[in-house]
Amino acid sequence: MKHTLVALVENEPGVLNRVASLFRRRNFNIDSLTVGRTENPNISRMTIVLDSNVTRVYQVEKNLYKLVNVISVQEVTQRPFISRDLALIKVVCAPEVTATAERFGARVLDQTDGMCVIEFAAEESRVEELVEALRPFEIVELVRTGVVAMGQGGVVTRVEPDWATA
Amino acid sequence: MKHTLVALVENEPGVLNRVASLFRRRNFNIDSLTVGRTENPNISRMTIVLDSNVTRVYQVEKNLYKLVNVISVQEVTQRPFISRDLALIKVVCAPEVTATAERFGARVLDQTDGMCVIEFAAEESRVEELVEALRPFEIVELVRTGVVAMGQGGVVTRVEPDWATA
Repeated sequence: MKHTLVALVENEPGVLNRVASLFRRRNFNIDSLTVGRTENPNISRMTIVLDSNVTRVYQVEKNLYKLVNVISVQEVTQRPFISRDLALIKVVCAPEVTATAERFGARVLDQTDGMCVIEFAAEESRVEELVEALRPFEIVELVRTGVVAMGQGGVVTRVEPDWATA
Repeated sequence: MKHTLVALVENEPGVLNRVASLFRRRNFNIDSLTVGRTENPNISRMTIVLDSNVTRVYQVEKNLYKLVNVISVQEVTQRPFISRDLALIKVVCAPEVTATAERFGARVLDQTDGMCVIEFAAEESRVEELVEALRPFEIVELVRTGVVAMGQGGVVTRVEPDWATA
């Protein structure tokens, strides 16, 4: 089963290194790891997707907490949540390509020299469906951001705005 | 000036660790680093945004190439390119929030318990503008994927589909 963890970490040079080392050392197999900025410039937010059992996820959570720069870890998949993956897909332009993009609600961002770049932000599985649907038209280039996620409504993973490194 | 590099790397456990170590060790200050899947399951694609001079960018490029799992590095900012950042922004719902989202072409993904989650995929600077525009309405939670980029038209960063680890 897929589990999605959100970790808030101090935005410092060594943090990504430490988290990556941890996963490597403990042989945690990560589906997707995305690191990005938050509303607080001192804090980065990691979204980690694991396809593991609950025990394993608990281990990851516990190990993340041991890292000094990790502020909080939350499994968002325990409650209603929203997740998004963003893909840019370059395919040889064709009417069927545009029709497929439209059917998925994706956007043709650019058409240059017979190449179409499609932008699609959706749930991971939906992105995979679009990629599969476009495969027959020859995918020339594909990039995905990895998954970001947050709880719905009042379920919030944040630290107070005045939070500062002690 | 901002430079955007795309690196194709072998999809193996230690790669992220090595790249993160490199940046740390050489004190390269990264604006944004995004790692995601490509059309080839054996290969991951990193998008690295640096705010540096050309010499520094060249150093990063050269150093990346030294890592064994790095297949290719390309600076996409040298030619016309497309870049996208994805944000999920949770704000307290209000008519002005919806109006602001609409004005930017962003989407209100979810409304639960008085909280609105807005999805916005756009160029990085545009995402920043929306975040600034929403700040007065109290941003409760914010996550960004970091930037992904690709050249327009025939400018392609890829390896052949039959590429395999030697």
